[in-house]
Amino acid sequence: MTSMQAPLLLTPGPLTTTARTKNAMLHDWGSWDGDFNALTARLGRRLLSIIDGGDNYACVPLQGSGTFAVEAAIGTLMPRDGKLLVLVNGAYGKRMAQLTAMMGRRVDVADFGETSPVDPAVVRERLAADPDITHVGVIYCETSTGILNPLADIAHEVAAAGRKLVIDAMSAFGALPLSCRELAFEAVVGSSNKCLEGVPGMGFVLARTDALEQAEGRSHSLSLDLHDQWRYMSRTGQWRYTPPTHVVAAFDCALDQYEEQGGQPSRLARYEANCETLIDGLAAIGLRSFLPSSIQAPIIVTVHAPDHPNWNFTEFYRRVKEHGVILYPGKLTAVETFRVGCIGAIDSGDMERGVAAIASVLADMGMQTN
Amino acid sequence: MTSMQAPLLLTPGPLTTTARTKNAMLHDWGSWDGDFNALTARLGRRLLSIIDGGDNYACVPLQGSGTFAVEAAIGTLMPRDGKLLVLVNGAYGKRMAQLTAMMGRRVDVADFGETSPVDPAVVRERLAADPDITHVGVIYCETSTGILNPLADIAHEVAAAGRKLVIDAMSAFGALPLSCRELAFEAVVGSSNKCLEGVPGMGFVLARTDALEQAEGRSHSLSLDLHDQWRYMSRTGQWRYTPPTHVVAAFDCALDQYEEQGGQPSRLARYEANCETLIDGLAAIGLRSFLPSSIQAPIIVTVHAPDHPNWNFTEFYRRVKEHGVILYPGKLTAVETFRVGCIGAIDSGDMERGVAAIASVLADMGMQTN
Repeated sequence: MTSMQAPLLLTPGPLTTTARTKNAMLHDWGSWDGDFNALTARLGRRLLSIIDGGDNYACVPLQGSGTFAVEAAIGTLMPRDGKLLVLVNGAYGKRMAQLTAMMGRRVDVADFGETSPVDPAVVRERLAADPDITHVGVIYCETSTGILNPLADIAHEVAAAGRKLVIDAMSAFGALPLSCRELAFEAVVGSSNKCLEGVPGMGFVLARTDALEQAEGRSHSLSLDLHDQWRYMSRTGQWRYTPPTHVVAAFDCALDQYEEQGGQPSRLARYEANCETLIDGLAAIGLRSFLPSSIQAPIIVTVHAPDHPNWNFTEFYRRVKEHGVILYPGKLTAVETFRVGCIGAIDSGDMERGVAAIASVLADMGMQTN
Repeated sequence: MTSMQAPLLLTPGPLTTTARTKNAMLHDWGSWDGDFNALTARLGRRLLSIIDGGDNYACVPLQGSGTFAVEAAIGTLMPRDGKLLVLVNGAYGKRMAQLTAMMGRRVDVADFGETSPVDPAVVRERLAADPDITHVGVIYCETSTGILNPLADIAHEVAAAGRKLVIDAMSAFGALPLSCRELAFEAVVGSSNKCLEGVPGMGFVLARTDALEQAEGRSHSLSLDLHDQWRYMSRTGQWRYTPPTHVVAAFDCALDQYEEQGGQPSRLARYEANCETLIDGLAAIGLRSFLPSSIQAPIIVTVHAPDHPNWNFTEFYRRVKEHGVILYPGKLTAVETFRVGCIGAIDSGDMERGVAAIASVLADMGMQTN
């Protein structure tokens, strides 16, 4: 199967990558070799530069999916007697709370439902009411719905209360603004296969070096011990355990393209155009997006399913796929929805193609809605 | 960089893969899509067939390096009040003990030094002396040196004592024989980038289904919870969290080639020929392998460094690399050695090329030894 025949992935990652990024995987690297160490070091510097991080932050890459990196960040950066408050408005916030409880640490949740952004005033109240809370966890863009959380205001409240913020920026990193010059945070977690448009297989944590220095012996897991990974990498230039070499090389190549294309502002502009084209196109065929535009991140759009007796997501998905377009299921419990990703190596023309496929299938299924 | 210019990796993984395997990564898969689920299911069936596993074993793939899968196997399959005896003769045995202690479980070690295989009689004694031991962990081929451990005899002692065996077969799986018809074991752990000649980025655990069924709620880690991964995958066909899609596709393609080439007996025969060519070739230029042939697995060979004042591994490595060959450093503490891998998409001709590069560099460095 070649890239030419590949469907268009309108998904929140794994997503559509460029041929150039995939071609970077056509080489076998020795994981102990100096050339590969140089690649790892360059990758770290580039990721740090995206948050304007100087020497006070370090990049610790980690094998596995983004969730592995989130778990590693919490398990390494939060002391064993710490307490995490997770700001939840979807599945990823719930997951952060779950993984914290599973490692045996104290965790509490501020739940904002599935359809509202985090309210910074509530964060302030919760922190004032519970002095045991040492750390706060937040999802920048909650991919369950596509909600954009007000990160700057949240970071302000957390810093004002003297607590530490861990940001799961998985689906936002590299597209939505995030600078350590503007926000106070302990760590931000991202992965290779979202807005930076690499392939999946690794995550990374950009953490304050002073926090990493204090983190020895805290981790509940050897594989997920970020302090150990950081120390070992600082000393040897190598990953502690076998890195996903081809994934790392593809990520580095994806970052070449990110920088050539103008970095974060340019990436955001393309995704905003994708999102606008999508929402406008869907509206024109009678489909409504779920979130008000004020809290809609240009990452993934939750769409109301047609209110029609013929609606059947499985059949709809299958038929849209026959048009060469891969959609994503909804994740809301109470409302019938589906999701369309705006991220990846795609542009407005691709979004128009996606809308055309959806329109054609709705017509074929007898659900013309306008 | 293209595969044509790529150096020959004589390393224990990541290793040299075929162009066909790498080309399988030139496609972006939707991780939720039915085509990808079918690929995951096929991969599991193929890995199970290598150990002759029927319905009484299940394949649970896991994101990350092999160490992640070993930690997941111990953390999921051993009860929280269990106790693990690890049979240690190198770095990977030590690592298994370390990760078990870090997750807060009881662990004891039977240490056989760096140069001896595990002695089954000692296993029998240790198990008889300590009824608290519930599980035994062993490394099939200890990559630190290349020692082959007597797996059948060890499995016999563990079963006779009514305990459960977890096998880290990372560097052996697919080449050395391992059948659940012949050995009793609870689980065997492998990875994509060793003798099955895929690319790195995932491991897998082939575990008894009755053991998995009893394992709910044991894991110390959400990311490494094999029970949850297994249940979710059984129910949905999908990985719980984002899989390394390109790595999975390459692995499946590597298994196509494994089967076409004749499976385990054929893979073993090629590696044995590689190993023999290597050891004979090195002997002809005056370099001795470290292990006696009786305990030398045909996976990786530890070689005594020349006893010469000009010896310098870093310089030797650099110069051999200029000949297009990547070697591996030694891991012994008391003896100066280097290592040469016999595995990957390489044959005897490649081993001859490796030996020729080594001979040429030794001559250039003034260390002609014969």
